Amino acid sequence: MTESSIHRAGLFCKPGNANLGEVVPGLVQWLDERKIEVFLDEAAAQAAGPGAKATSREKLVADSDLVIVLGGDGTLLAAARAMADREVPMLPVNLGSLGFLTSVKLSELYEMLELFLNGKHRINLRMMLQAEVLRGGAQKHGARALNEAVVNQAALARLMDFDVHVAGSHIGRYRADGLIVATPTGSTAYSLAAGGPIVHPAIDAFLITPICPHMLTHRPLVVPGDSKIEITFSPGDEPVHLTLDGQMGFELEPRDRISISKSPIRVPLVRPWKKTYFEVLREKLRWGER
Amino acid sequence: MTESSIHRAGLFCKPGNANLGEVVPGLVQWLDERKIEVFLDEAAAQAAGPGAKATSREKLVADSDLVIVLGGDGTLLAAARAMADREVPMLPVNLGSLGFLTSVKLSELYEMLELFLNGKHRINLRMMLQAEVLRGGAQKHGARALNEAVVNQAALARLMDFDVHVAGSHIGRYRADGLIVATPTGSTAYSLAAGGPIVHPAIDAFLITPICPHMLTHRPLVVPGDSKIEITFSPGDEPVHLTLDGQMGFELEPRDRISISKSPIRVPLVRPWKKTYFEVLREKLRWGER
Amino acid sequence: MTESSIHRAGLFCKPGNANLGEVVPGLVQWLDERKIEVFLDEAAAQAAGPGAKATSREKLVADSDLVIVLGGDGTLLAAARAMADREVPMLPVNLGSLGFLTSVKLSELYEMLELFLNGKHRINLRMMLQAEVLRGGAQKHGARALNEAVVNQAALARLMDFDVHVAGSHIGRYRADGLIVATPTGSTAYSLAAGGPIVHPAIDAFLITPICPHMLTHRPLVVPGDSKIEITFSPGDEPVHLTLDGQMGFELEPRDRISISKSPIRVPLVRPWKKTYFEVLREKLRWGER
Amino acid sequence: MTESSIHRAGLFCKPGNANLGEVVPGLVQWLDERKIEVFLDEAAAQAAGPGAKATSREKLVADSDLVIVLGGDGTLLAAARAMADREVPMLPVNLGSLGFLTSVKLSELYEMLELFLNGKHRINLRMMLQAEVLRGGAQKHGARALNEAVVNQAALARLMDFDVHVAGSHIGRYRADGLIVATPTGSTAYSLAAGGPIVHPAIDAFLITPICPHMLTHRPLVVPGDSKIEITFSPGDEPVHLTLDGQMGFELEPRDRISISKSPIRVPLVRPWKKTYFEVLREKLRWGER
Repeated sequence: MTESSIHRAGLFCKPGNANLGEVVPGLVQWLDERKIEVFLDEAAAQAAGPGAKATSREKLVADSDLVIVLGGDGTLLAAARAMADREVPMLPVNLGSLGFLTSVKLSELYEMLELFLNGKHRINLRMMLQAEVLRGGAQKHGARALNEAVVNQAALARLMDFDVHVAGSHIGRYRADGLIVATPTGSTAYSLAAGGPIVHPAIDAFLITPICPHMLTHRPLVVPGDSKIEITFSPGDEPVHLTLDGQMGFELEPRDRISISKSPIRVPLVRPWKKTYFEVLREKLRWGER
Repeated sequence: MTESSIHRAGLFCKPGNANLGEVVPGLVQWLDERKIEVFLDEAAAQAAGPGAKATSREKLVADSDLVIVLGGDGTLLAAARAMADREVPMLPVNLGSLGFLTSVKLSELYEMLELFLNGKHRINLRMMLQAEVLRGGAQKHGARALNEAVVNQAALARLMDFDVHVAGSHIGRYRADGLIVATPTGSTAYSLAAGGPIVHPAIDAFLITPICPHMLTHRPLVVPGDSKIEITFSPGDEPVHLTLDGQMGFELEPRDRISISKSPIRVPLVRPWKKTYFEVLREKLRWGER
Repeated sequence: MTESSIHRAGLFCKPGNANLGEVVPGLVQWLDERKIEVFLDEAAAQAAGPGAKATSREKLVADSDLVIVLGGDGTLLAAARAMADREVPMLPVNLGSLGFLTSVKLSELYEMLELFLNGKHRINLRMMLQAEVLRGGAQKHGARALNEAVVNQAALARLMDFDVHVAGSHIGRYRADGLIVATPTGSTAYSLAAGGPIVHPAIDAFLITPICPHMLTHRPLVVPGDSKIEITFSPGDEPVHLTLDGQMGFELEPRDRISISKSPIRVPLVRPWKKTYFEVLREKLRWGER
Repeated sequence: MTESSIHRAGLFCKPGNANLGEVVPGLVQWLDERKIEVFLDEAAAQAAGPGAKATSREKLVADSDLVIVLGGDGTLLAAARAMADREVPMLPVNLGSLGFLTSVKLSELYEMLELFLNGKHRINLRMMLQAEVLRGGAQKHGARALNEAVVNQAALARLMDFDVHVAGSHIGRYRADGLIVATPTGSTAYSLAAGGPIVHPAIDAFLITPICPHMLTHRPLVVPGDSKIEITFSPGDEPVHLTLDGQMGFELEPRDRISISKSPIRVPLVRPWKKTYFEVLREKLRWGER
């Protein structure tokens, strides 16, 4: 990848973050000086100062050669889901504490950009999942997630029955508070809190992790990434939801079938120069300490 | 306890259970023949046939010397919570499969009743918890639970911060989907699904079990039964609930303080003749199998 | 694969199993009638009756076009490790209860053999790991395992420190009773008891599962199958062992380095006709039950 | 408790600790000045300088009104087991990092001693367990433990069957690497690493925690402190051991029966002035951090 390939960059920012005012104007100028057209989302435009024009997040991602994500893991999840059918490189920079996905510090931003412009960066392609809701034979909803899809119920009546098929084979009935289907990237998010293992993102797999399973023999299950996972559930007394990356929710109906498979679109993450995957793990989970 | 001490028995039944029609009329007649006055709840009255009169569940429990619970564990939980300030013996009989609390089979009902009338039964006193919601210095709600109190949030925005004090000492901040405070009786219910240990009901203790804790070092904690447990939580984006025994819910407000302590009222369970606590565990959890 | 391709079959049996006497003579005759030369291990020769000649297990596997394994999962593990550099199809038949690897019943043996001889069977290639012990720069031991390699210490002084590198990157120091590196096949064996997830055998990965980790944040880790995993450990007071598949052990010295990678040799398992992988899981872990 | 009640103090030290040379001479002088006779164990005598006389650890504990333990949790465990039939107050001071039992820092030593001499200290009585090995009807070994008793096997052949009775009732057969019976004090030691809960030391209970149970439904079990726990095990191929507090081991024979109950002797721990039980937990398990 050579310098000339970068003509347009997007700034995708965490709304309301106090650090944006200090970062965005300088970053816009830096990109301007390099003749790179800049697109700003709402939060970036506010931080850029008077006269700055905001672009919709979907259009920003669609029109950029590089999306600079300023925020936390949640901001990157939103940027990833905003991608249409073209894989757009994402450079995730954390504005506060280290994230699993946003391990580049603000102080490393320009160094990373230089590497990118000179084609000396490296890319990690992260798998996304595609979730479809099938209702009465027709597809009702469809959306992607970088971390996970969750099916669960509202607070009071929590216990549900889930029937799960993988590649057409019935793997069992789960009686649980909910069911998580996660990508390897999502293995350090909600699935980890529910007792799942950590799965390296280079592995082509999904995790199926039940939330508070009633049956003590139900263990997290790692299945091949090319599997189609189908979930049906028993009608509950209260509304049941499908939630993607903890950010986007659909209300389900009793006979809905949720079908999850690998998205053809992956997220090209610009890899941090200074930290390996395992170093981020060590720092986030404090494995280095005694 | 001698025969003459039993003058009034209540029938507390699981609504809609198909077996009630076969059991209730005979049971009413059996009690009548022994000059025991019978009180029926709505479901029992329907099953008893035309002319039977229903009593409210609270009055039924208040006026009985023995409450015969016909249903599952959920029915017993409801009966226990219906008790006012007098400890009323409960004989729990399962209408279907073995329950942790309802381990007496229908076929053993009359044998158990004979033992009870002859004063040859044994009683297990089960601790209940008392949960209070304190709002602006005043007590807003108060209720008992035999299994557990749960604080959690509605489906989409699940992660919350909980600060927990035990006996006035801050034990830590939990970042989790929810928090369970369970009695030993409740240790085989929701707390078990959330990863908690099994605590024998003769132990005077509470379990504090986080649901899907974000911090991997948070382990279930067993604290003395005479502790006062106080919970506050960070304001969430969606309604937060206190749920008792999975059956009764209160909507909480951001600055509410939940205070949990041992109820002075315990549940006198008529102990099954044929099964010890550990035998029920073995059968329910299949520990006997290879 | 056509019938003519099978000229020699080996019988690899669990020593001392009481059912062998009923199975082996008939099986030998059945193979004889089909002009297939039969090799017998010690246990098979004893069961075949007077005059039967035993072959060493290594030679038996080396010279066969198909190895019929009669026993349990442990017998198959031994057969797999007896393979030299040629991948020999294995037909595992359980003589007693269902195994994760030996899911074919004795009553299905001849049906499976017919399928095999007619080339109508299907094969699952199961990954093995290769473990090397490096001492003073030189390779001291080397062996394969189908399930797992374990490093641990003798009973009394159990706690050890392990430093683990994956693909050259230090993933952390584990303070634990031991460390398991398992294949996906081994994910339903020792690693499962130590708290590991279930990993479908089609996934190209290793599991790193600590045994009783002192640090509560250490979770099972799934890493790419093409990783080299290197383990060093702190000198213990008592002997430290490397154990392969729970069957073969090496005593280690304080400065030894254990290196684990994927073996180029896989185990071709003749796939059971009647049960999928998930059906075996369901039956073994009782996921089908309520 | 008044000043005059302290006539003799023992110094029970961690052998080989580099800090002893700086602490012991001054501490001996401080006690001398207060007319308190001082007993030294081997390590204390070495640190006290030439001419200092060592007393056996058992005699030191037997003859002291207060035992000052200088070391880590392991040193306190040894001091506790050295007690005969008189409960001797123990003041545990850590020479390095905070321990669960040794939460008093060296810098707080003299302040704690002043409190003790003025009778202004507080005591926590910690339960110990008494383990007996019964062989052929006779008691073969007997010893106490403050943390836990463990039954397990040597490295290679790890899996065993355990039958456990509590208060005469069979609670089940465990197929596991080993079995831990812990006191509440021991709940933050080995049992925690094996997946057990944290049990407040004021609770009168034992924990039964299997190590790597083969059957996934086996959960840690908390049973009343006045229960007698009896363990038998299937004969293993390699020696089976009973280990107390990770420090003292007995080799068992196939038909041995291990009987565990509450010791009549408890350990009087001088309570740290500055930290509650939960504060130590928070600091050790990093619950205070984000």
